[in-house]
Amino acid sequence: MRNLKLIVQYDGTAYSGWQTQPGYATVQETLEQAISAITQEPRIRCNASGRTDSGVHALGQVVNFFSGTRLSPEVLRKAINAKLPDDVRVSHVAEVPQSFDANRDAVRKRYRYVVNDARVADPFLRKLAWQTLVPLDAELMHTAGQALVGRHDFRCFETHYPNRLTSIRTIYELAVTRHGPTLWVDVEADGFLYNMVRAITGTLYQVGRGYWRPEQVLQILQAMDRKQAGPNAPPQGLFLLYVKYSDESLSDNPPQGAFFSTNI
Amino acid sequence: MRNLKLIVQYDGTAYSGWQTQPGYATVQETLEQAISAITQEPRIRCNASGRTDSGVHALGQVVNFFSGTRLSPEVLRKAINAKLPDDVRVSHVAEVPQSFDANRDAVRKRYRYVVNDARVADPFLRKLAWQTLVPLDAELMHTAGQALVGRHDFRCFETHYPNRLTSIRTIYELAVTRHGPTLWVDVEADGFLYNMVRAITGTLYQVGRGYWRPEQVLQILQAMDRKQAGPNAPPQGLFLLYVKYSDESLSDNPPQGAFFSTNI
Repeated sequence: MRNLKLIVQYDGTAYSGWQTQPGYATVQETLEQAISAITQEPRIRCNASGRTDSGVHALGQVVNFFSGTRLSPEVLRKAINAKLPDDVRVSHVAEVPQSFDANRDAVRKRYRYVVNDARVADPFLRKLAWQTLVPLDAELMHTAGQALVGRHDFRCFETHYPNRLTSIRTIYELAVTRHGPTLWVDVEADGFLYNMVRAITGTLYQVGRGYWRPEQVLQILQAMDRKQAGPNAPPQGLFLLYVKYSDESLSDNPPQGAFFSTNI
Repeated sequence: MRNLKLIVQYDGTAYSGWQTQPGYATVQETLEQAISAITQEPRIRCNASGRTDSGVHALGQVVNFFSGTRLSPEVLRKAINAKLPDDVRVSHVAEVPQSFDANRDAVRKRYRYVVNDARVADPFLRKLAWQTLVPLDAELMHTAGQALVGRHDFRCFETHYPNRLTSIRTIYELAVTRHGPTLWVDVEADGFLYNMVRAITGTLYQVGRGYWRPEQVLQILQAMDRKQAGPNAPPQGLFLLYVKYSDESLSDNPPQGAFFSTNI
């Protein structure tokens, strides 16, 4: 059996998230069915770097699966894409060492949360951003967010804590940048808790609109209480950008993918 | 009765074009129903700068209608948007002279056709671009397109010629520009024939992929024969960008709206 690694992009709008759930359309099941149709193997199991929730998008989801297929990576890529619906695309296929596990071996991930604060909602961003209609101070959000950089217990930003053995994670970078009426909240970390980026964005939003002082973000972190943080930002603004592995040859450059600004 | 002018943005994916057709969802009917619900007038008739086809988008469609409402333009704008589905938005409302007619008074319009020639289709552009998967030479397309600038009989680019009294139009600017894997085919003219931008794009595509020499574009124009030109590019790449009027106060700046590139 070969171990094959995919980079997958998807518009999550039509899916109940990554993970297979009987009775729901999921990206995992959609991808597994497309691969099975090509390799003629009934039981393909795709192992992703992490789950994404209903309505969440990916530009660089990483997946591995085992298959006996003899097709070359490039032939496989084209054949799988021919079977997939057009809201899911495989941009790269590579054969990797047997030991590679897309989930366990991930050492860094980067998410981008896209916010748009234009006075009028943009019909083209309705499934791809959180349109607040409320003006936000991106610089203040960036400054406030720096309190979260580093190794901390992030349980205050976790839905249904505890989900994992530990809620300690390391945020390597948190950057809020403005691009016209669009704000990007980029968070790169060694791992993420359930809804963590959406809770961080919902918290920084309260700062950006002037409801909370920037200093409150540190207090929220230290309180370790989900109720102190802001509500989760809605799912459609969230994009998994890329995943990095300790073996550099398995880490891809930031992928090409859709980018949303608002000047024509 | 007041004459009210709207600037309207829409994602045309879900609509059978602008113009009302019984049994089909259209932007016109959707907008008229939203306005009627606010002004309590049963027969609102929206007059657009021009029709857009099924699946075609607009960032700056201009519309006027007559109403007895006493609501202020800004209150109307918000109230209409609250009634509209989120794939149609009104970005501006203004009271204009009784004589203003959004269709008859238009002196220039600009369309953008969005092409993407990435090796792998982008799931986020599937309803917003023509994804050729074939590499194109944008500079050559631009050069070839210059033969069309000026006052010409454009019947070779008209579907079902003749639709109008004359097929003579003036193209003021035709620009093909590359933005990463995305190409914009921008055409600004005093008016457009049915499917004209899509036929021009389909013709320049044949040049861009190396099938036709750039000089053939002039020969096609001179042949005045639709069969000589390339096939119509598909509808989902086409955006009505803006409309200009001879009275400058009625001409809006190029509107803000979604812009699609592919670097994250």
